[in-house]
Amino acid sequence: MNYHLKQIPERTTKPRTTGFTMVMDKGLSIREVEDMLEISGDYIDIVKLGWATSFVTKNLKEKLAVYKAAGIPVYLGGTLFEAFIVRDQFSDYQKVLDEFGLEYAEVSDGSIVLDHDRKCEYISTLAKQVTVLSEVGSKDAEKIIPPYKWIEQMQTELDAGAWKVIGEARESGNVGLFRDSGEVRQGLVEEILTKIPEEKILWEAPQKEQQVWFIKLIGSNVNLGNIAPNEVIPLETIRLGLRGDTFDYFLDKV
Amino acid sequence: MNYHLKQIPERTTKPRTTGFTMVMDKGLSIREVEDMLEISGDYIDIVKLGWATSFVTKNLKEKLAVYKAAGIPVYLGGTLFEAFIVRDQFSDYQKVLDEFGLEYAEVSDGSIVLDHDRKCEYISTLAKQVTVLSEVGSKDAEKIIPPYKWIEQMQTELDAGAWKVIGEARESGNVGLFRDSGEVRQGLVEEILTKIPEEKILWEAPQKEQQVWFIKLIGSNVNLGNIAPNEVIPLETIRLGLRGDTFDYFLDKV
Amino acid sequence: MNYHLKQIPERTTKPRTTGFTMVMDKGLSIREVEDMLEISGDYIDIVKLGWATSFVTKNLKEKLAVYKAAGIPVYLGGTLFEAFIVRDQFSDYQKVLDEFGLEYAEVSDGSIVLDHDRKCEYISTLAKQVTVLSEVGSKDAEKIIPPYKWIEQMQTELDAGAWKVIGEARESGNVGLFRDSGEVRQGLVEEILTKIPEEKILWEAPQKEQQVWFIKLIGSNVNLGNIAPNEVIPLETIRLGLRGDTFDYFLDKV
Repeated sequence: MNYHLKQIPERTTKPRTTGFTMVMDKGLSIREVEDMLEISGDYIDIVKLGWATSFVTKNLKEKLAVYKAAGIPVYLGGTLFEAFIVRDQFSDYQKVLDEFGLEYAEVSDGSIVLDHDRKCEYISTLAKQVTVLSEVGSKDAEKIIPPYKWIEQMQTELDAGAWKVIGEARESGNVGLFRDSGEVRQGLVEEILTKIPEEKILWEAPQKEQQVWFIKLIGSNVNLGNIAPNEVIPLETIRLGLRGDTFDYFLDKV
Repeated sequence: MNYHLKQIPERTTKPRTTGFTMVMDKGLSIREVEDMLEISGDYIDIVKLGWATSFVTKNLKEKLAVYKAAGIPVYLGGTLFEAFIVRDQFSDYQKVLDEFGLEYAEVSDGSIVLDHDRKCEYISTLAKQVTVLSEVGSKDAEKIIPPYKWIEQMQTELDAGAWKVIGEARESGNVGLFRDSGEVRQGLVEEILTKIPEEKILWEAPQKEQQVWFIKLIGSNVNLGNIAPNEVIPLETIRLGLRGDTFDYFLDKV
Repeated sequence: MNYHLKQIPERTTKPRTTGFTMVMDKGLSIREVEDMLEISGDYIDIVKLGWATSFVTKNLKEKLAVYKAAGIPVYLGGTLFEAFIVRDQFSDYQKVLDEFGLEYAEVSDGSIVLDHDRKCEYISTLAKQVTVLSEVGSKDAEKIIPPYKWIEQMQTELDAGAWKVIGEARESGNVGLFRDSGEVRQGLVEEILTKIPEEKILWEAPQKEQQVWFIKLIGSNVNLGNIAPNEVIPLETIRLGLRGDTFDYFLDKV
């Protein structure tokens, strides 16, 4: 840190298993990646190339090389996995992971109907090739999954070999874990936490209020995802009780 | 594309007459322009320097040179045209176009009252100098133009020499084609399309939901404008059915 | 300016005492700072490193050097001052200002309870070391300070040695001077202006509608703050009557 302040909550350091931050890159240029890493690379644990943006992004290999040089793993958004699955191109997807030297992958069913046993098979097959993040929750605001189902799916996906399970939110933060308004489905989150260890969960929380809510519930070292590149530094200050939103909260605790 | 996926809607390629994307640059630096072009230049068909931002932007000539080298035409926002007209400086405006080597220009009346015949005269005069885009629709949310008038104005402006007509939305997407809430005036758009060929129209649609709506109505190769620089890649995935919003839609079609 | 337009409101130039623009940098990289200064440096009078972002920003000294070379003063957000005060580390805060060569500082009580006499003592102590901006208004949307109190506090803080007083808004623009919805507390602002000279006030106004409102009330050369880096050019056009929002307004006046 740049100077000394007393009573700052302890933060985990890299390689983190809790307290990690997943950034959503939805089309950064190489220089923009360099800029983000220069200023906030220490606080970025993993990067998702949002949905299927990798399909149309120029200089993809050069960009992946920049992340690799910084020791930051990258995975392709779950929608891309689904795009391959729905076209019956799973083996092509596996080749893409190899060709681009990717060591992480996401398995999801936010936009397709996928039998849950079949989803778990994909997880366990891919887990032999890469580290798998699996995602629970639909991108369709109409599809409300009850809490016991979230828990059941998360548990079986972890059992199938997922490294972590992701709670869905999209870039906008208004589906899955959240209501249309962006408000957290609090009962859902609290019920999940009674059964699934929090270090196994990556909560997508793109909006500041959502990040604050999770940090107050779980602490500085909650795993948060879908963070926009220019919100990494602000998020870090919220984790440390150094922004108005959590200022009081941590003073009482540390 | 970076890998192969089956059943992807066909996209037009440059030089496009349909399916083109107009980006709004409201003050990018030269390096930011370079970054945008590096990552998404193939998907950008024309750039608008929003409203009168060109008046206060430093290094304007150097910036225009970067776009020119990439083969991407640039035009100055219609509000600037209006600023010259309202000050009775039309010939000065023509000189500005020359001095900066601009080959496209916008004629609009979103912020001024301009007799429609007079507007068409400006279009036909400028059409001898540059390629003209003319814009229909007011920036004033209170001024509702009925559909028959939109059609009449669009047609006479095309007859006067406009290359394409633009449906107004502003940077925010809440006037002209859209309601205060950003919702599309669907009846208006559908009625326009019964009379004006869609390849002659450039729909300003800055919000994602607006882009999705037009793509579902008209297809992947609809002309869309006022796209923010960091939304070019996301828009391209929506056009291709590779983001949640149009994922199902195109699968049924291709 | 890049070309000549008649009837443009006169703008102050650097060093400005009115009409100045304060930008909020919440974690720009060095290259992003360079880009912002290249394109809009002439319109930026002072930069705030938002709240305590300076605590976690890498290469802080190098970044400050870029601002210094451009002749643009930088200060650390008031929340950082409060973080030191609440930990009883005021003298450490003074050392931080020295160590980083800062010539401006903010004194605020947006997130802490601070006796007002004590606040004024901090202002007068710091005023011997640096130029002080003091801020009035809470970050807590529930805490409504009545107008007479705003005025009393602003006046005593100026008397204590503050160079300018800041009206609080946060990055989001929905507390302090503004209602939850972002709407200006008009009566409050107008009452303040009956007592405090407007050149002594810096109004935080991150949202476009807020900027427009202040410009229409006070004029092109109102002091505005919490401007996002990519909104500096747009703001400049609003000040000059060259965006739809103030287009008519200034035509009648100039």
